[in-house]
Amino acid sequence: MASQHRSGCPINLTLEILGDSWSLLVIRDVMFGNRRHFNELLGKSEEGIASNILTARLRRLVANGLLTRAPDKHHKQRRIFSLTERAIQLVPVLATMGAWGSEHLPVTPELSIRAKILAEGGPELWEAFMDELREQHLGIVRPPGTPSVFDRLELAYRSMISEC
Amino acid sequence: MASQHRSGCPINLTLEILGDSWSLLVIRDVMFGNRRHFNELLGKSEEGIASNILTARLRRLVANGLLTRAPDKHHKQRRIFSLTERAIQLVPVLATMGAWGSEHLPVTPELSIRAKILAEGGPELWEAFMDELREQHLGIVRPPGTPSVFDRLELAYRSMISEC
Repeated sequence: MASQHRSGCPINLTLEILGDSWSLLVIRDVMFGNRRHFNELLGKSEEGIASNILTARLRRLVANGLLTRAPDKHHKQRRIFSLTERAIQLVPVLATMGAWGSEHLPVTPELSIRAKILAEGGPELWEAFMDELREQHLGIVRPPGTPSVFDRLELAYRSMISEC
Repeated sequence: MASQHRSGCPINLTLEILGDSWSLLVIRDVMFGNRRHFNELLGKSEEGIASNILTARLRRLVANGLLTRAPDKHHKQRRIFSLTERAIQLVPVLATMGAWGSEHLPVTPELSIRAKILAEGGPELWEAFMDELREQHLGIVRPPGTPSVFDRLELAYRSMISEC
């Protein structure tokens, strides 16, 4: 066991790599909000992440193989962030965390509707969502006509916003 | 939305209540190790938690309704910590986190065997384990002869230790 880790326990190592709560919130925004540029991650952050913290967390997420950073085909000056396969496989962690928070904590309706849909859908819906993320972020195309989990979550979120 | 929270997102609130990585590691040790006393949590911690950090985290976990602290029937001088229902419902979060870490991070065999068994068992095994935790921590007795998930995990862990 390399000595830079506190222990070889999978829960401990996961907490170490996700570092602090900001890292997981950045992954959440890339994953569920499809926020792929620095300015979107900064300006639309519900929690008001500071610019220097966002920069540091993005750097660490890239170094740890959870995000990749590449030139954006459509905007030569900009860089686009994408989830890696190992980050996409965090969907069940975020889904179970969102389900728990929705059940036990003072969540707002518009920010918890997606978590509730994912919780009700269970592992089958998580798998479909992961396949869609592989298409969005890794370019692995799904069969034509595959229903979009992302659109379903986004639509539910927007309809809650318009009610609030 | 009360202003002491960064946002009403269930993932954010979950990260806020679990505070830092030490809180979730303490819950892990109470849950999977059945470590119920301060000295056990301190002395057997794989990650070497410091006494003052453990004290602070236990206090916060009690304040947030994740642990209860009561006199121990068997040792009048000692206090015993128990998981609450809301903490027991963190089993799917810890199970998915352990599965992800086992797949992607440099885990050690003896500290990942329980995570692997829980991952393979899926939601059905998690439910059975939660029922067993309700018996251990809340006194809600299960039907006689119900197989013990805790013993199965513990046995697998001990057999890996003897191999290492």
